[in-house]
Amino acid sequence: MRSYEAHVMEPGNGRYPGRVTFPVVGMVGGGQLARMTHEAGIPLGIRFRLLSDTPQDSAAQVVNDVVVGDYRDLDTLRAFARGCDVLTFDHEHVPTEHLRALQAEGVTVRPGPDALMHAQDKGLMRARLAAIGVPCPRNRIVADPADVAAFAAEGAAEGTDGFPVVLKTVRGGYDGKGVWVVRDVTEAAEPFKAGVPVLAEEKVDFARELAANVVRSPHGQAVAYPVVESVQVDGVCDTVIAPAPGLSGELSAAAQRLALTIAKDLGVVGHLAVELFETRDGRILVNELAMRPHNSGHWTQDGAVTSQFANHLRAVLDLPLGDPRPRARWTVMCNVLGGDFPDMYFAYLHCMARDPGLKIHMYGKDVKPGRKVGHVNTWGDDLADVRERARHAADYLRGTIQE
Amino acid sequence: MRSYEAHVMEPGNGRYPGRVTFPVVGMVGGGQLARMTHEAGIPLGIRFRLLSDTPQDSAAQVVNDVVVGDYRDLDTLRAFARGCDVLTFDHEHVPTEHLRALQAEGVTVRPGPDALMHAQDKGLMRARLAAIGVPCPRNRIVADPADVAAFAAEGAAEGTDGFPVVLKTVRGGYDGKGVWVVRDVTEAAEPFKAGVPVLAEEKVDFARELAANVVRSPHGQAVAYPVVESVQVDGVCDTVIAPAPGLSGELSAAAQRLALTIAKDLGVVGHLAVELFETRDGRILVNELAMRPHNSGHWTQDGAVTSQFANHLRAVLDLPLGDPRPRARWTVMCNVLGGDFPDMYFAYLHCMARDPGLKIHMYGKDVKPGRKVGHVNTWGDDLADVRERARHAADYLRGTIQE
Repeated sequence: MRSYEAHVMEPGNGRYPGRVTFPVVGMVGGGQLARMTHEAGIPLGIRFRLLSDTPQDSAAQVVNDVVVGDYRDLDTLRAFARGCDVLTFDHEHVPTEHLRALQAEGVTVRPGPDALMHAQDKGLMRARLAAIGVPCPRNRIVADPADVAAFAAEGAAEGTDGFPVVLKTVRGGYDGKGVWVVRDVTEAAEPFKAGVPVLAEEKVDFARELAANVVRSPHGQAVAYPVVESVQVDGVCDTVIAPAPGLSGELSAAAQRLALTIAKDLGVVGHLAVELFETRDGRILVNELAMRPHNSGHWTQDGAVTSQFANHLRAVLDLPLGDPRPRARWTVMCNVLGGDFPDMYFAYLHCMARDPGLKIHMYGKDVKPGRKVGHVNTWGDDLADVRERARHAADYLRGTIQE
Repeated sequence: MRSYEAHVMEPGNGRYPGRVTFPVVGMVGGGQLARMTHEAGIPLGIRFRLLSDTPQDSAAQVVNDVVVGDYRDLDTLRAFARGCDVLTFDHEHVPTEHLRALQAEGVTVRPGPDALMHAQDKGLMRARLAAIGVPCPRNRIVADPADVAAFAAEGAAEGTDGFPVVLKTVRGGYDGKGVWVVRDVTEAAEPFKAGVPVLAEEKVDFARELAANVVRSPHGQAVAYPVVESVQVDGVCDTVIAPAPGLSGELSAAAQRLALTIAKDLGVVGHLAVELFETRDGRILVNELAMRPHNSGHWTQDGAVTSQFANHLRAVLDLPLGDPRPRARWTVMCNVLGGDFPDMYFAYLHCMARDPGLKIHMYGKDVKPGRKVGHVNTWGDDLADVRERARHAADYLRGTIQE
């Protein structure tokens, strides 16, 4: 018999008399990731407490125990943490120094700041991955447009000037925001205007993008989901195919090993998404890291034995992790972006009638053009069919097709 | 293209500015069925409002929009309904006359009182099923113990006195409560003490119990889940096996047809569970009806394309129904009952470590001996193995086995 005595959480703050042993998870951030984490926490019987910017946020609409407050304020975080056995995150934006302060005061923060800072700061992430020998695109911090030109020249092949170059602010970017592809020194001026350090990276001529998602718990147990293909449109995730079609067993295993190594070496607790480039010559390079449930793992809600959300909760609570294996030959996720019509209810009805096996996940968000407001999952044996079903529903919900 | 214009709900009470078209479902009753219905409603993007007896009830712990109040009070129901596009139920106990009053005032009640009264009153149910030709155990309303003896004598075979007889109060029973199996006229006194009409039924010498679960929407669409075997222990559901092992295609189809007929003829909207006896000579007789998500359908959360909870919501909103087909060869559900230990957290850890594919569903309820506090689902190709996994977890959580 395996003993878990070492990992059992202390009871919460006594707000639930008679139910002291099922712990309270506090999640900072009220977006759709928190919404779906709460959904996954309901069958687990845990308590879920939310720190949300507003009472209207996606997760705040569906969670019972909501604190409205500013995650940038240490006192707010401190008061919120008081009711929780463990603190975890819907986004990377909580200041690292606040997390250190909370940790010093005895709050259990998972992932902890020593790990999370690598998802918060792309410069730190690149330096650390280089130190542990993880292959990345050529990169360095650049000081100004002239330095960008120098960086480009360093990578120039015979007869080229090394442009285009990818520039990223080291903090605060997501979904293509905070990222520029610049074709010359003139275009390189823009990213420096925010006053945030800028990272230059070679523009990788990739064959496609992959994601290797793993979950790691404090006692060191880890599980790896199948490696997926991720298709981006205008810098925003559009489609995820699980598993990545035609990916060799070798490269798939290498990507999983890479993600497990990063999780272990950085001390990640919870879900880690490693976004990868698959190069045309069959290598993999790390693009980005996220230490929370991630868009590339939404397919697991309907396509895996245990979803990324359930496993993230199990990990931050140091519960044994759930089986990450797929339930279907193919699962496809397409994001639903807002279109020109603010009202999706007609389209939603139509999609349900057309495809009774379609799984729609709506976030309760106001529709704005280009905004992620939901996603759909489909599964089956025929990839072309599975993909077409998800594609159709996402396009119909957005309003880009009619029928 | 199919038009749904006729079925679109009027927007809610405007409490969610900018999100008027996703409707508000109000559920009366804060038990685990409401908890799991809310869980299923999160991806649907609908609003879920709860009328709960206390703020500590199973569903009240996880729902954002909770009204605490007494469902037996018409004014409370009226105020609650004001914020909802449709009213539905976690239990059968709302007085029928209140539902009629609400309906008369324009509230959309699903299932409506004309259907629901057959799940509220066993006498009405038996009379109606007889009228539409549905096979039931021999039964009639009895006036006193002498009348019970007369009922028994009417069914006596050669050389017997017709006992034992099953007696049920026509209202208020569940999980074996309100049901007696009496062996003689002396024992027949007890059920009359409550002052509620008593129904006598023959004690069917059944081979096993089955359940046929269907979902029907107001526009008449209906789906049928696979017929399951339900194993009761001490009058409480213990195990559900989907599909019922060894059930002939003919009997399975007959059971589904029967349930669909009842749903249509009684005008049921939402989930209908038809509990059945399979007799030793290969007939099926209706035991009980429930017009809400039901314990015999909990396996659908992990074992069907669309769960009973999601389909109940889709039905009461008149949305197109989801695919009811199974995702695995076998799915088994076992209820987790409370044992002698109030703290299940150690056992829960152990079960997760032992079986990473186990799906635990906890209700957030205080542990009391014999009380349903959760259930587990397992699935796979080998029924003996799938059943053993669920059995083990339920027993370990209850504390009846150690290892």
